[in-house]
Amino acid sequence: MDSTSLFNADTSVNEIAARRYAGVLTDRWNALSGTSNGGYSLAVCLQALKREMVKLDFPDPLAVSAFFLKPATPGPVQIHTEVARVGKRVATGEARLLRDDQEIVRVVASFTDLPQASGPTLLLNRMPELPPVQQCVDLLGGKGMPGVSITEQVHYRVARLPGWVQGKPSGEGTMEFWMRYADGSDADTVSLAALVDAAAPAVLELGQRGSSTVELTVHIRARPAPGWLACRVSTRHVIEGYHEEDFEIWDSRGQLVAQSRQLAVLHRATS
Amino acid sequence: MDSTSLFNADTSVNEIAARRYAGVLTDRWNALSGTSNGGYSLAVCLQALKREMVKLDFPDPLAVSAFFLKPATPGPVQIHTEVARVGKRVATGEARLLRDDQEIVRVVASFTDLPQASGPTLLLNRMPELPPVQQCVDLLGGKGMPGVSITEQVHYRVARLPGWVQGKPSGEGTMEFWMRYADGSDADTVSLAALVDAAAPAVLELGQRGSSTVELTVHIRARPAPGWLACRVSTRHVIEGYHEEDFEIWDSRGQLVAQSRQLAVLHRATS
Repeated sequence: MDSTSLFNADTSVNEIAARRYAGVLTDRWNALSGTSNGGYSLAVCLQALKREMVKLDFPDPLAVSAFFLKPATPGPVQIHTEVARVGKRVATGEARLLRDDQEIVRVVASFTDLPQASGPTLLLNRMPELPPVQQCVDLLGGKGMPGVSITEQVHYRVARLPGWVQGKPSGEGTMEFWMRYADGSDADTVSLAALVDAAAPAVLELGQRGSSTVELTVHIRARPAPGWLACRVSTRHVIEGYHEEDFEIWDSRGQLVAQSRQLAVLHRATS
Repeated sequence: MDSTSLFNADTSVNEIAARRYAGVLTDRWNALSGTSNGGYSLAVCLQALKREMVKLDFPDPLAVSAFFLKPATPGPVQIHTEVARVGKRVATGEARLLRDDQEIVRVVASFTDLPQASGPTLLLNRMPELPPVQQCVDLLGGKGMPGVSITEQVHYRVARLPGWVQGKPSGEGTMEFWMRYADGSDADTVSLAALVDAAAPAVLELGQRGSSTVELTVHIRARPAPGWLACRVSTRHVIEGYHEEDFEIWDSRGQLVAQSRQLAVLHRATS
């Protein structure tokens, strides 16, 4: 990723002691209600852990699991990292994000050097069938959503507006769209782990107001090519307020680059 | 789960110090090549962590992520647990499984009290359409696979034998089948987290020999009703030797009770 990108600047960390880093959650990546987006706080953890993993020649997150213990709010944070195991192809470590000395996010992640992967390739799924970006419409009509500052940093393009935008959710559990950073910078393997959580949740089209993530797992499958990313988000099982959300990101070469699943709990209706 | 079940006996742990437990990986739950099945070693971790979570009135694993750092072999193990955060509905902790003082498995898990969950329910997916168990055939012809002792502890019933059993993989990425413990005991929310890893991998039907799990995430969605479990396993993206495996378990009431995804790496051909 371009070092001048806003995402890179806003997830940068400084080493303050052995395996300990300091950073700042800026207010430019907020989800609803003044809290930092989960994918964004996860990415700050990964930037710290990556600093340790690069020393081992494993620069790419491969499998990442984040547990969101408390809502994160903008401000200074510390990230404590640990490398648990270094193998031949993969190293695994942990990062804990602390805000005011309270642990907010716990991440375990395996890193690798993705271009070194070699083996069979077989796809039984297809990338989203979207019209070219130029023929799509801006999901948010060219402006961010009030109070949701992350929507100012990411652009979304859809073939046609989903029902929820007009207050008429269709009940469909799957949405497809293009996504890209608003400043034109390209995704890398760390920022993909944030982008899987950077779009409107699939449950909006199911008539729900949104949800809070309990756990998010991301598998990074390849380094992404530059350009717009084709995305598919899907929720199929809402059970007693809990639901999964699956997310796929395909790059401009038509390659699956990230696949994620999160377990989230619906916001209760305010009444 | 019945306390006399073999699974319960073989995953039982004893507290040896504050938050530290001792157990034994028996040789009855081996995967290929004399190593313990990943889901089984995960379950031993969960039994230890559950002991801490029950004290907080959160008896059910809800979201579980396991990283397999080294192959586990049968023998005595210790499990070190930690509770990271106790919330209103969910508590999150960590368990590390050590064999000969080496960390083998790292698990982070959120626990809850599943019957307390309340909120909307909406399903956009259906349980596997399988004939009644009595009309199905035994996947393994009534005997376990040599060297794979876990296949002696779990029964599998299929509508018709998949191609890989006869040496002719069909290339289909999805398999559906019934599953149950061989001793007739019923699954609970801990053993579900093992069962998602207890069946033949989907990649066998893609002509592959098998794979090793890097990371496994399990979401437990409800306490299972007694009886046979309807399962769907699926792999859609094999990329440079890495693949995901998705697993669903539906109980005898037709309710989704567990959903998992793992990232695994294919075994290389021996040549």
